[in-house]
Amino acid sequence: MKNIIVGQSGGPTAVINSSLLGVFKTAKDRGADTVYGMVHGIKGLLDGDIVDLSQRIKTELDMDLLKRTPSSFLGSCRYKLPDIKGHEETYEKIFKILKELDICAFFYIGGNDSMDTIMRLTDYGNKIKSPVRFIGVPKTIDNDLAITDHTPGFGSAAKYIAATTKEIIRDGLVYDYPVVSVIEVMGRNAGWLTAATALAKGEDCEGVDEIYLPERVFDVDKFVERMGERLKENRSIVVAVSEGVKVADGRYVCELSDHVDYVDAFGHKQLAGTARFLAGKVAEKYGVKTRAIELSSLQRCAAHIQARIDVTEAFNCGGAAVKAAFEGKTGLVITLNRISDDPYMCIAEEADVHKIANVEKKVPSEWITEDGTYVKSELVHYIMPLIQAEITPLWVNGLPRHVRLHYAPKDR
Amino acid sequence: MKNIIVGQSGGPTAVINSSLLGVFKTAKDRGADTVYGMVHGIKGLLDGDIVDLSQRIKTELDMDLLKRTPSSFLGSCRYKLPDIKGHEETYEKIFKILKELDICAFFYIGGNDSMDTIMRLTDYGNKIKSPVRFIGVPKTIDNDLAITDHTPGFGSAAKYIAATTKEIIRDGLVYDYPVVSVIEVMGRNAGWLTAATALAKGEDCEGVDEIYLPERVFDVDKFVERMGERLKENRSIVVAVSEGVKVADGRYVCELSDHVDYVDAFGHKQLAGTARFLAGKVAEKYGVKTRAIELSSLQRCAAHIQARIDVTEAFNCGGAAVKAAFEGKTGLVITLNRISDDPYMCIAEEADVHKIANVEKKVPSEWITEDGTYVKSELVHYIMPLIQAEITPLWVNGLPRHVRLHYAPKDR
Repeated sequence: MKNIIVGQSGGPTAVINSSLLGVFKTAKDRGADTVYGMVHGIKGLLDGDIVDLSQRIKTELDMDLLKRTPSSFLGSCRYKLPDIKGHEETYEKIFKILKELDICAFFYIGGNDSMDTIMRLTDYGNKIKSPVRFIGVPKTIDNDLAITDHTPGFGSAAKYIAATTKEIIRDGLVYDYPVVSVIEVMGRNAGWLTAATALAKGEDCEGVDEIYLPERVFDVDKFVERMGERLKENRSIVVAVSEGVKVADGRYVCELSDHVDYVDAFGHKQLAGTARFLAGKVAEKYGVKTRAIELSSLQRCAAHIQARIDVTEAFNCGGAAVKAAFEGKTGLVITLNRISDDPYMCIAEEADVHKIANVEKKVPSEWITEDGTYVKSELVHYIMPLIQAEITPLWVNGLPRHVRLHYAPKDR
Repeated sequence: MKNIIVGQSGGPTAVINSSLLGVFKTAKDRGADTVYGMVHGIKGLLDGDIVDLSQRIKTELDMDLLKRTPSSFLGSCRYKLPDIKGHEETYEKIFKILKELDICAFFYIGGNDSMDTIMRLTDYGNKIKSPVRFIGVPKTIDNDLAITDHTPGFGSAAKYIAATTKEIIRDGLVYDYPVVSVIEVMGRNAGWLTAATALAKGEDCEGVDEIYLPERVFDVDKFVERMGERLKENRSIVVAVSEGVKVADGRYVCELSDHVDYVDAFGHKQLAGTARFLAGKVAEKYGVKTRAIELSSLQRCAAHIQARIDVTEAFNCGGAAVKAAFEGKTGLVITLNRISDDPYMCIAEEADVHKIANVEKKVPSEWITEDGTYVKSELVHYIMPLIQAEITPLWVNGLPRHVRLHYAPKDR
């Protein structure tokens, strides 16, 4: 048996470290010698920044803490490998490093961008007949990966969003005058996370009033008009809107603001948020109190409210990746296949990386209402199993305990 | 035995309903006939909008759900009673209603503004020799009440803020380039909540880099300069800043922005946030990625992460208020007296409402570092016992279960 190497890439999730643990533990159980970690993904590998994970994950307590630690334990990068053609030296360098480390399998935990890395390495590996196997482990809160039923990381983010939305709805109702609250949810192109706000509605909660996904064209005037209609009921209103909603001419709603917060040194305009823009429009027109609530990075790092099913599936995807590699397979991404809806049962399978890299899966149009202001019950039914069950944080001195990140700076 | 009445006022907290339960259950246990609730506080009483709480809190399950439900079960108001002089008719009306309902004691759960109501009613009651007793139950996430060691609601908000700050710090470290994250925390005049971000620092977490409270004058240029110094270390930086920080001429930092988001129909300018303004300044100057994170209303409604000590103390304050009233006392506010710091022990006592109404307690200057960029260990030591222990949400179908609010609108 030889060594393996694993990296994490793209935005973190609340369970990305469960997948890392799935790779580490399964590889060790199946007899791997050294499990290396790339620090800051493929970029760290190229820079020679690697770590022997056994030096960092030693005890069962380490493992249970790692599962509960948000953000990528190994750090992340947004680095994309260049085309093979014309950049052979980059690939030669990578495969030389892999050979020096005696690597038999390479695992990358990431989304559709990161799967591009697995695809290119597979292609180059096949070309030079390298024995190294390349397997992708799915991860993204955005749930926009093709083929797989859903992605690890989505369920925990959806659970956080749904629970927080319930609390915001309660809070909005407290006064005896109407308040319009606009919740802005992540997802530039796919509305899966925004749709999760629909889960708030139930026996004990009125739910949000409207939900806007980026899959439909957004009409600002119509939105403001609808708010006016609802305000006639003289009660608080809560609306969920994706950060990625666009108007008919293709501009993001947040780009409609006259105002640019600031221009940074690279010339990037920092735009006001979508929720703030819409809340402003409503306040301007009707003179009511409004609130813009951006869930911001809390959506992807709220590890204190992980879905247990998500933690388990994330771990299993890591484990299944090792199993596939150790069976001699390469060029694959692990996918989740929902075998049964009720009762919910889901198994890990494999798909060709070429069918997943760089492909985005959006919310199907038939799961959104005709007028585009809410989602249908099929979509709620699809998400509901993915937020189930809890994993208790390891509370130490009143706060959830984490592991220190490998690459974290020294104490400040 | 006669009837009592209870109301909730001001901004909600994660444990304001535990105090309501403390009043309800203790009054029932001590033989009260009917426990009335004012819907939307004193304003609801004046409008005749009251409810018999026994009709809504019937079982032990109802009680356990109520404790875990954020926002005020009875609704809230920001209504302040007018001066007695010249507005006798308002007081005559209130005391007439109380007499009709056969009320022997009146309880109001609120902050220093709400205690003004208890003070005025006490004064008028004494003037007309009314037998009704008036007792205040302390509540505010801001922790700015005089005399009491701390206020119910503060501990749970501090726990949420500290836990979330830990997660944000983890998240900020994930990339291989520096990010400056500015967390904006509630508290217009008192920095208690912002100080709670200091609790993030520990064995497993580097902590925030700087903390700015409204108790000190804020210097924007100096802040930007300090960020520049820190950026030389080429790592991610996390800063916590109170929404209420002001510059030397008395303007809020958020008022320095050239830009007004919008002006509402009442002519109120909606200003950009403090964190956004500061993040913009840093991005402009150094061209680094920045993030402005407003914890917004999540700070006061995140009931899924209550501190058990806070839930217990909130309940006890409600109970102690009933005990005091049933012993014939009036014109009091229940306070918490920290008997011992280590081990932490705290008991409910009573204080004259005239010493608490409209008084604001700020963070003592000696608990802030000389240069005003962090807090001292004494402050951490003070807050730490208040975030201790957990209360498990009642998870139903993957989400924390609440009770429906009394006054909530019908299903949407």
